[in-house]
Amino acid sequence: MEDYGRFLALLVSALLVGFVSVIFSLVWVFHYREGLSWDGSPREFNWHPVLMITGFVFIQGIAIIVYRLPWTWKCSKLLMKFIHAGLNTIAMILAIVSMVAVFEYHNARNIPNMYSLHSWIGLTAVIFYSLQLFLGFAVFLLPFAPVTLRAALMPIHVYSGLTIFATVIATALMGITEKLIFSLKNPAYSASPPEATFVNCLGLLLVIYGALILWMASRPHWKRPPEENVKVLRPIGGTPEGTEAESTMTDGSNADKSDLRVTSEAARKQNLKFDEAGQRSTM
Amino acid sequence: MEDYGRFLALLVSALLVGFVSVIFSLVWVFHYREGLSWDGSPREFNWHPVLMITGFVFIQGIAIIVYRLPWTWKCSKLLMKFIHAGLNTIAMILAIVSMVAVFEYHNARNIPNMYSLHSWIGLTAVIFYSLQLFLGFAVFLLPFAPVTLRAALMPIHVYSGLTIFATVIATALMGITEKLIFSLKNPAYSASPPEATFVNCLGLLLVIYGALILWMASRPHWKRPPEENVKVLRPIGGTPEGTEAESTMTDGSNADKSDLRVTSEAARKQNLKFDEAGQRSTM
Repeated sequence: MEDYGRFLALLVSALLVGFVSVIFSLVWVFHYREGLSWDGSPREFNWHPVLMITGFVFIQGIAIIVYRLPWTWKCSKLLMKFIHAGLNTIAMILAIVSMVAVFEYHNARNIPNMYSLHSWIGLTAVIFYSLQLFLGFAVFLLPFAPVTLRAALMPIHVYSGLTIFATVIATALMGITEKLIFSLKNPAYSASPPEATFVNCLGLLLVIYGALILWMASRPHWKRPPEENVKVLRPIGGTPEGTEAESTMTDGSNADKSDLRVTSEAARKQNLKFDEAGQRSTM
Repeated sequence: MEDYGRFLALLVSALLVGFVSVIFSLVWVFHYREGLSWDGSPREFNWHPVLMITGFVFIQGIAIIVYRLPWTWKCSKLLMKFIHAGLNTIAMILAIVSMVAVFEYHNARNIPNMYSLHSWIGLTAVIFYSLQLFLGFAVFLLPFAPVTLRAALMPIHVYSGLTIFATVIATALMGITEKLIFSLKNPAYSASPPEATFVNCLGLLLVIYGALILWMASRPHWKRPPEENVKVLRPIGGTPEGTEAESTMTDGSNADKSDLRVTSEAARKQNLKFDEAGQRSTM
């Protein structure tokens, strides 16, 4: 792997920033707020930031870059797909539990649901994330979809994944803003009490985490190496894993390796066409 | 250009959504708020959302995709760089005026500055945007930087540009959240008065605009075609425009075209290495 040291440094930084964000969310609810419980009180609400930051931000971020870990490249693609789908499913479940906590808290206190921009964009993100998970499972994990369909959907899958991830972080920042304004009364948010400064720092950490994940996910030279080209060009019906055309947001970095393997000009053209369409699923 | 019709449809959609966002910001301040003026009153504050949405969101988005407009491909790269830098400079100026409006309004009313997460992340985005503009000008527009430096910095320039753009939209969403909570008192934001629903829709439009720009900016087959490879491989010192190694977030889609032009294996290897490093500046 090119720049292995730099990749490792970024990975450790991302894991550290993500982990510290989760710790910050726990310190926020336990030190500055009332802690956690499931009884319709503000303590039930507190599950919302903790589970969203843990699941929908931290775990989703890891799910995005899991194909890029070089020590997984010897593992089968199918295993990695299960890990990718599994992490995203865990993130999804935590996000749903986290939403239930807010709805129950609102209902117990007669606070209206779904009035804020945070709730509108957050729910939209959860709906798109569910669709992404369902379509990803049906098209890329189950062995039924033809190569052409996988090839056509992969760039959309990658783009949607990164865009949803960025939108989730934006939604978390709106949620932090809302919560600080609503809960800090004496002193108010504008007086910058310690809780305000601390939670603002949590917001900054989330932005840094997002930026690190997006950098790692969009470097072409850190992609999982493609399967043998002969497999990419093989018609539908082969072994499910490895037969699909593959893609990333940053496609084409392996064009030189491809050139060494294909012999006929027609095959080369087709291969490069696959490259252009963005069909390597190494995200 | 591949999928010209689809590109055009997306471009028209993005321009429409961006334009409607600007109109929405004007309707917000003129219909629901007190309008615009420069006198320390809430009317001075109102310049903030209008100028940020016009400059820092709409114009910045256009600056990002300006290289991708196929009818500009016959224009010189230098001219396009001036347009790209010019649009970003306009966006920067509007963002600064917009910040001055808020500081003056806060100072006139004795409201503290820089306490919110919105202000922290917003100011960080403006600082990084200034750095990006300065470095972009020094490295890619002035003719002094060597090809190797341009090649090394281009992927960072592209990534930073897209990340700052996404961060700016996230900051706008936080700003909308803040403003609606602070200004809607009777009825409150939670009672969903017409202004709340209207401005929430503005927030959704900003997310859609961002998503459209990021899609157009990250499709490899919509890149401005590279200059002749002989220019890419020419040593430092030729005509400034076209001599630098070039890059995008989604690099490598022109590998086949490159293959047809280079003759020696060494040149081919070097060219593919340039491709891998992500060095085509067609964003």
